[in-house]
Amino acid sequence: MKVLVTGASGFIGRHCVAQLHAKGYEVHAVSSAMRDAPPGVTWHGADLLADGEAAGLVRRIGATHLLHLAWCTQPGKYWTALENFDWLRASLAMIQAFTAIGGKRLVAAGTCAEYDWHGGGICAEATTPLVPGTLYGSSKHALQLQLAAWSRQTGLSSAWGRVFSLYGPHEHPQRLMASTISSLMDGNTATCGNPGLVRDYLHAEDVASAFVALLECELAGPVNIGSGHGVALGDIVTAIGQKLGAVDRVRLPSVSVRGTEPALLVAETSKLALTGWTPKFDLDRGLDDTIAWWRAQPRATLR
Amino acid sequence: MKVLVTGASGFIGRHCVAQLHAKGYEVHAVSSAMRDAPPGVTWHGADLLADGEAAGLVRRIGATHLLHLAWCTQPGKYWTALENFDWLRASLAMIQAFTAIGGKRLVAAGTCAEYDWHGGGICAEATTPLVPGTLYGSSKHALQLQLAAWSRQTGLSSAWGRVFSLYGPHEHPQRLMASTISSLMDGNTATCGNPGLVRDYLHAEDVASAFVALLECELAGPVNIGSGHGVALGDIVTAIGQKLGAVDRVRLPSVSVRGTEPALLVAETSKLALTGWTPKFDLDRGLDDTIAWWRAQPRATLR
Repeated sequence: MKVLVTGASGFIGRHCVAQLHAKGYEVHAVSSAMRDAPPGVTWHGADLLADGEAAGLVRRIGATHLLHLAWCTQPGKYWTALENFDWLRASLAMIQAFTAIGGKRLVAAGTCAEYDWHGGGICAEATTPLVPGTLYGSSKHALQLQLAAWSRQTGLSSAWGRVFSLYGPHEHPQRLMASTISSLMDGNTATCGNPGLVRDYLHAEDVASAFVALLECELAGPVNIGSGHGVALGDIVTAIGQKLGAVDRVRLPSVSVRGTEPALLVAETSKLALTGWTPKFDLDRGLDDTIAWWRAQPRATLR
Repeated sequence: MKVLVTGASGFIGRHCVAQLHAKGYEVHAVSSAMRDAPPGVTWHGADLLADGEAAGLVRRIGATHLLHLAWCTQPGKYWTALENFDWLRASLAMIQAFTAIGGKRLVAAGTCAEYDWHGGGICAEATTPLVPGTLYGSSKHALQLQLAAWSRQTGLSSAWGRVFSLYGPHEHPQRLMASTISSLMDGNTATCGNPGLVRDYLHAEDVASAFVALLECELAGPVNIGSGHGVALGDIVTAIGQKLGAVDRVRLPSVSVRGTEPALLVAETSKLALTGWTPKFDLDRGLDDTIAWWRAQPRATLR
């Protein structure tokens, strides 16, 4: 397997690169944020949104497998970023180029934001309505529809991993777990605006291994990537407080102001189970791992 | 109104250009098949699928209104053409560029092939499931979803005209009405493999005036463009035979072999009626108009 990974320096991609390399595959890692290449991994610096670059890169590298994770992901911005259109266009071009060079298997990252959040609940690939409410969700979903139609037409083997909530080392400091840990470690309080919301959290390393499992099998179409278990956000924040001996500095409002977000958003994971994948971390051990990573960081990066 | 029309030399586009010009608008017509410019209409030869050309053209012309009709349409090929991806990408880039220059109103062409043909029937914008079964239908539908999400996000005023069956002068000679008329005029027989299929046929000039009506109003989202009436394909072929005095050369099988096509595919048109649009032709007068056009053609063009 010669595999091209986009978004290779990202929250999920970094683990995919390491896992694929450890399995002995030839790994070509693409990222706009160039990193030092671990021995045996070839890094390619590229701006996939530049005209023709995504397709050109696919042709130059000539991989048999493509794991496409790159997309706009800046917290607070990506839901509405007009750049979602650029990512959709670049991704379509990559699918075309990969098929043209005879690529064997393509797996790309989708999102639970493709589902209809008016209902929310336990989301199943085959039955939950797909009515994305954001430009991000719509753009991802348009790509999923096109990948499926393209695969039916051309015979390309493909799957689509719908990611739910995730956490772990290297998380963006504005996101819930990272900000909670760093605030409490700094001696500050930590809060959570919507403690009652129930989400499906999976350690980024496990999300990555699910993508690798999808790449290694022949399962087709959308596949939820989640733990299958819901946890209230308030309980996560409290658990972090307990682990850090700082539960007295956790501030949870008694009433949630949840706006348009669904009360419950959990993955139905029976399709994912068909790959044989199992997670390495439960939430308790995943939090320990994440806190250990934060403790090992130089103090300045905590802010 | 300064309006840019893509697909301007096409079956629908040619009428849109003429109608918009007759209404006194400044018309910029884009086509890969360059035509002589009628006085007062500016023609732009362009390959919208070339890298950056679609967006560049939109920026150069700086129209207030965009009527986007261009797409791959070659009979027998367009359902499965891989080029559908190129059209989707180019169309997304045009939407982005048009918004960036402050464009006021965008209308684009969709298709009844976006609907779920397993059901078929009377298709309504708000209730009929959207499960396209072809790469063409999927690509058009992905663009509709993205145009809707983009418009919600940016405030762009847009509509999406879902075209059903159409006919009229200049129709591709491989399509049903054109091939029936030319075969019978040549003294040959005419047949119809699926005489029992019921479709919603609208004269191309009326399809065009519906698009112009959509461009002139503020109605948002998908709007079916059809007559609202179903007619059996066998009845159309027979009617043409009668009008040409050649009904004895019409061959209709007693049993249809309809494959995956739906028995009934008719537009629910109450949303279109909100524009005030009414058709110029019923089917009877539309056939007369089409036959008159074929009679006026030099004989060599009939084959």
